[in-house]
Amino acid sequence: MEESIIKNRVIGVDISIERTSYAIVDVRGNIIARDGFNTSNYDSATEYVSVLSDKIVKLAEENGGYEKIRSMGISAPSANYLTGCIENAPNLRWKGVVPMAAMLRDRLGIAVAMGNDAHVSALGEHVYGSAHGMNNFIILTLGHGIGSCIFSNGKVYLGAAGFAGEIGHTCAVYGGRTCACGKKGCLEAYCGARGIVKTAQELMEQSDKPSLMRQAERLTPKIIFEFCEQGDEMAQEVFHLTGQRLGFLLGAYATLLNPEAIIFTGGISHAGHWLLDPTNEEFEKRVFHNTKNRVKLIPSSLEDHERDVLGASALAWDIKEYSLFK
Amino acid sequence: MEESIIKNRVIGVDISIERTSYAIVDVRGNIIARDGFNTSNYDSATEYVSVLSDKIVKLAEENGGYEKIRSMGISAPSANYLTGCIENAPNLRWKGVVPMAAMLRDRLGIAVAMGNDAHVSALGEHVYGSAHGMNNFIILTLGHGIGSCIFSNGKVYLGAAGFAGEIGHTCAVYGGRTCACGKKGCLEAYCGARGIVKTAQELMEQSDKPSLMRQAERLTPKIIFEFCEQGDEMAQEVFHLTGQRLGFLLGAYATLLNPEAIIFTGGISHAGHWLLDPTNEEFEKRVFHNTKNRVKLIPSSLEDHERDVLGASALAWDIKEYSLFK
Repeated sequence: MEESIIKNRVIGVDISIERTSYAIVDVRGNIIARDGFNTSNYDSATEYVSVLSDKIVKLAEENGGYEKIRSMGISAPSANYLTGCIENAPNLRWKGVVPMAAMLRDRLGIAVAMGNDAHVSALGEHVYGSAHGMNNFIILTLGHGIGSCIFSNGKVYLGAAGFAGEIGHTCAVYGGRTCACGKKGCLEAYCGARGIVKTAQELMEQSDKPSLMRQAERLTPKIIFEFCEQGDEMAQEVFHLTGQRLGFLLGAYATLLNPEAIIFTGGISHAGHWLLDPTNEEFEKRVFHNTKNRVKLIPSSLEDHERDVLGASALAWDIKEYSLFK
Repeated sequence: MEESIIKNRVIGVDISIERTSYAIVDVRGNIIARDGFNTSNYDSATEYVSVLSDKIVKLAEENGGYEKIRSMGISAPSANYLTGCIENAPNLRWKGVVPMAAMLRDRLGIAVAMGNDAHVSALGEHVYGSAHGMNNFIILTLGHGIGSCIFSNGKVYLGAAGFAGEIGHTCAVYGGRTCACGKKGCLEAYCGARGIVKTAQELMEQSDKPSLMRQAERLTPKIIFEFCEQGDEMAQEVFHLTGQRLGFLLGAYATLLNPEAIIFTGGISHAGHWLLDPTNEEFEKRVFHNTKNRVKLIPSSLEDHERDVLGASALAWDIKEYSLFK
């Protein structure tokens, strides 16, 4: 058999609200080539699929040939793995139910699988990242929103209707801040990006202590992190309080789920030890004794821009080859 | 093939702290014969195994013959399914690690599997009870302690070290009552048997309102339930508060786990609507909108004394027949 016709590569696609990234990946998770474009430029899903398909074929032709591509995996918000559709994504321009996997399969002539972004990123961590070799773990995504994915018995835990993992909307503070979802005291209202800024504002209001945060034109978790690094005590207190609330809830969930590790991803996880140390401290106080000192709270070993395409590529490899005659 | 040599029956054994129950069960979950004895009469595990084996053989011989028995399943506290051992059970008289499955297999000459009581009872519900046909659900056991078992993707979710399900020791009230485990505000300290009695005592102290509970010699959840049935408002308030706390936490766990149902078992679940109605009301307030009105909170359809032997029998059927030549 000639080397050129061995299908030893897949395509991983990450459809995010702002940007679409796609890459050619080999079976070891090496990214052979990658590129991207703005998701939000396309009003219709048909137009988007047409552009994405052309770009993928072009990238493949420039990097060893399209005939080496075995299959394709996609990570997308509000994606349903079972139907291959993006279903009523609140933050994408295409409304309703978009049969994205089928549309791309028809254009490209290869097998396509698609999963929810949180689940696909967990698959990326499992195959190529910090969770490699673990069968029971939790991936926590800390950004504007807070999401999670539970891996159980070596598989993504989807729940009865595919909605498992909504940790951001579980209660961290009884009767606390009103969340964007309408409920009170949600974790996201404290440990999501807006929640962290709100904690900073509350601290500034509660005292006259000096802080670099008072001079900042616009506060973000990233700027608060930079002030932490510069030795600003009030900025450090912001992450301390954030970590305490996070550790409190994670302690309960680890008691319930007995994971091997909880892996931190997303922009806010880059606050590093300023966030992880107080989280860990409160976590160990809260977790049941049989699980004490046994759960690793660790940052992801994958870059944010790699995790989702790698996860999507793992999903692509996961597609079984089949024949009607076998 | 003669009817008499078809191995169409299994033994289900429930080893509880006080009582051991054992039954001959067919493949449809019909209990053909059953019996039991006091677990706590036997100082040594060897003596216990000897007595249990003899009793099982006798029961089988009196009911169609021992040769019809295919295999045996056991439910036991602190049992490890992977090793077949009861490991350091705090409330049994046999200390250390007892290789119960191997000891019984050696005496009886049939395949034996053993699982943790919470996990085995979930299996019983899955195969024969309220969770029949469900792949993602939670079993909640409300008694002196509060335990749970999570079923995910059609299997018991064991967690990384087999400790998943310790819902009783997750925090229901921040900074609340001190639990037997040493932590504060645990669900068990409010919704376990002692916690419910404590709530009753607190209510009696907080007001001068008349209540049948004031005349009771010794309060138990069962007696408080009887007062509810007699129209005692303060007794009803006890279960109302208990249900609110339970519903609050279950709302969070359903948001995280997206189960199809939460099934109530154990003595306290017999409080019926006095407990389930306030639990459900608070639950629907707390659960994330995508899961609202989609999770059934229901009592188990199995009798308490049947669930564990039936679960153990399901575990027995689960043992694969194998041959070194196949």
